[in-house]
Amino acid sequence: MARIAVVAGDGIGPEVVTQARKVLDAVLPGGVEATEYDLGAARWHRTGEVLPDSVLAELAGHDAILLGAVGDPTVPPGVLERGLLLKLRFAFDQYVNLRPSRLWPGVAGPLGNVKPGEVDLVVVREGTEGLYAGAGGSLHRDTPAEVATEESLNTRHGVERVIRDAFVRAGRRERRKVTLVHKTNVLTHAGSLWARTFEAVAAEHPDIETEYQHVDAAAMFLVTQPQRYDVVVTDNLFGDILTDIAAAVTGGIGLAASGCINPEGTYPSMFEPVHGSAPDIAGQGVADPVAAVLSAALLLEQLGHADAAARVNAAVAAELSGRTPGVTLRTAEVGDRLAAHAVA
Amino acid sequence: MARIAVVAGDGIGPEVVTQARKVLDAVLPGGVEATEYDLGAARWHRTGEVLPDSVLAELAGHDAILLGAVGDPTVPPGVLERGLLLKLRFAFDQYVNLRPSRLWPGVAGPLGNVKPGEVDLVVVREGTEGLYAGAGGSLHRDTPAEVATEESLNTRHGVERVIRDAFVRAGRRERRKVTLVHKTNVLTHAGSLWARTFEAVAAEHPDIETEYQHVDAAAMFLVTQPQRYDVVVTDNLFGDILTDIAAAVTGGIGLAASGCINPEGTYPSMFEPVHGSAPDIAGQGVADPVAAVLSAALLLEQLGHADAAARVNAAVAAELSGRTPGVTLRTAEVGDRLAAHAVA
Ligand SMILES: CC(C)[C@H](C(=O)O)[C@@H](O)C(=O)O
Ligand SMILES: CC(C)[C@H](C(=O)O)[C@@H](O)C(=O)O
Repeated sequence: MARIAVVAGDGIGPEVVTQARKVLDAVLPGGVEATEYDLGAARWHRTGEVLPDSVLAELAGHDAILLGAVGDPTVPPGVLERGLLLKLRFAFDQYVNLRPSRLWPGVAGPLGNVKPGEVDLVVVREGTEGLYAGAGGSLHRDTPAEVATEESLNTRHGVERVIRDAFVRAGRRERRKVTLVHKTNVLTHAGSLWARTFEAVAAEHPDIETEYQHVDAAAMFLVTQPQRYDVVVTDNLFGDILTDIAAAVTGGIGLAASGCINPEGTYPSMFEPVHGSAPDIAGQGVADPVAAVLSAALLLEQLGHADAAARVNAAVAAELSGRTPGVTLRTAEVGDRLAAHAVA
Repeated sequence: MARIAVVAGDGIGPEVVTQARKVLDAVLPGGVEATEYDLGAARWHRTGEVLPDSVLAELAGHDAILLGAVGDPTVPPGVLERGLLLKLRFAFDQYVNLRPSRLWPGVAGPLGNVKPGEVDLVVVREGTEGLYAGAGGSLHRDTPAEVATEESLNTRHGVERVIRDAFVRAGRRERRKVTLVHKTNVLTHAGSLWARTFEAVAAEHPDIETEYQHVDAAAMFLVTQPQRYDVVVTDNLFGDILTDIAAAVTGGIGLAASGCINPEGTYPSMFEPVHGSAPDIAGQGVADPVAAVLSAALLLEQLGHADAAARVNAAVAAELSGRTPGVTLRTAEVGDRLAAHAVA
């Protein structure tokens, strides 16, 4: 029995999470014991609380966290991001931020020269360091002399473990290739740490092909030749940007799944669709639950149920290739179809 | 008589710069007095020098610098970037890094749903601050305890002047819209400085439409809806990445021009194609000089010759719409055609 903490969140979050739970209930061997946690913009508006320590402690006792989406336009920037999402990533040492992108059959991506099935990459984004560490400040605020800093912190410990993870994942894939993305020609200190660590880990994996690209070149190649990538490993901020490009070229963030993973299982990992709470379409039952369901598949994999995960992915493939362009989908019906297909 | 310093550089640099000079010679009112400077990978290999102080002082005496491309794969990362390109941007206070992207008629971009003529944006990238300031270091190098930092430095002075420049440029364009791109929800200190400064400058320009986007969202929208942008103003590193995406969706960096501009003219501005030295095709006479020629058009504009710049742009439009896909171009012939068209 897997103990899952469910943070449905705001906007379309609850709608898509309901479908992801439907699918998990249907396929998770041994069943699901789900506990719901009320976190996000709604709670913050009501109580001023973002993530009470007691809730953090309770979440820690679960096997995994399933999150819908949090936020709405009236919450000041940073409150939920720093206070909830990043807080969880850091508190639970979720150093592997896993973001697969596939151009699924049936999905018309924006690129004229890329055919479905040709893109199948995964970005292993570092999740606990870099510019996300929260190191920075400002002086002389609101005067002409104001200065503001943001500091990227990178440790050998943090860089090595995420690079190792990327190589292990590449070893399980067909193409067995890892691309390091950084900006070594400008960020020479952090870049050198990343590059030297990458070389050291690569030397232990002579069977895996490696390449290096500057982040600007990678951003370009994700548009012109996304087919060239297999596993991409990169720093926290670069990963944030590159994964949105990867999502865009494979049909949009409406289909993009992510996992914030603590590979050792010391803490729970968290799985969430990349899309936001989409207040404009919330409550209408028309949000696409595919990204949430694909995130549930990543959860299954992380908990050791690769078989069940594969069945969910197959259900998604069937769903997407059966869609008629222009026809409005119904969130709940999609969930029903996916759950039915995944158990069959 | 404009005094232009020419840094042809490495690889295809000299080939494309020759064409840009051809065009400048043809259209620049009053003529050109060009002085060539030997800088780049070749000089570094030969002498170990990157940018001697005496050369820097000489460059300062020119009206503008025209640069081809510097670098080759055997120069360690950072040597020419930090020692030459960034050194010039910082020494000459080139705080406006200007990067226009147009989908020219006749150019088949990678996006299926975007038609030529629909994309016409310019990124005003900050050029003298942020993570490019060179603030950072490392400790315990090559040990398991290694830590490396990179610091983004942002001043009200630096942020305000580039935002002002963006609004002035927007005021001269048809759509009159400025998009600020940052990551205010994570980089809260620098993000807040950028956002507050943007609001203050926007208040002085009620006739200009404004919007804000996080960098990850902007990276995505540049792929899915590049038509939505007019002027984009952003920080140094975000601008580096976004301009490569903008170039990719408008036909590639082979067509992308850039200007590193000191708007006050206290120091010379520098103009260079975005592409690199492309050692794989160097010496064959097949490099496309369009990006270098478009950079020369930016130079003309900066020196106050808007008319001549417009004629060069018209020549490029004619050239690109007259190309037959698949036919190998000859660098010198393209330069001849562009020069002839621009004077006519
Ligand atoms: C919401 C924000 C903090 C977050 C990030 O920057 O990591 C988001 O963009 C993401 O990619 O998960
Ligand atoms: C070569 C490098 C230093 C440079 C940058 O990062 O600015 C380049 O990528 C550019 O965009 O001009």
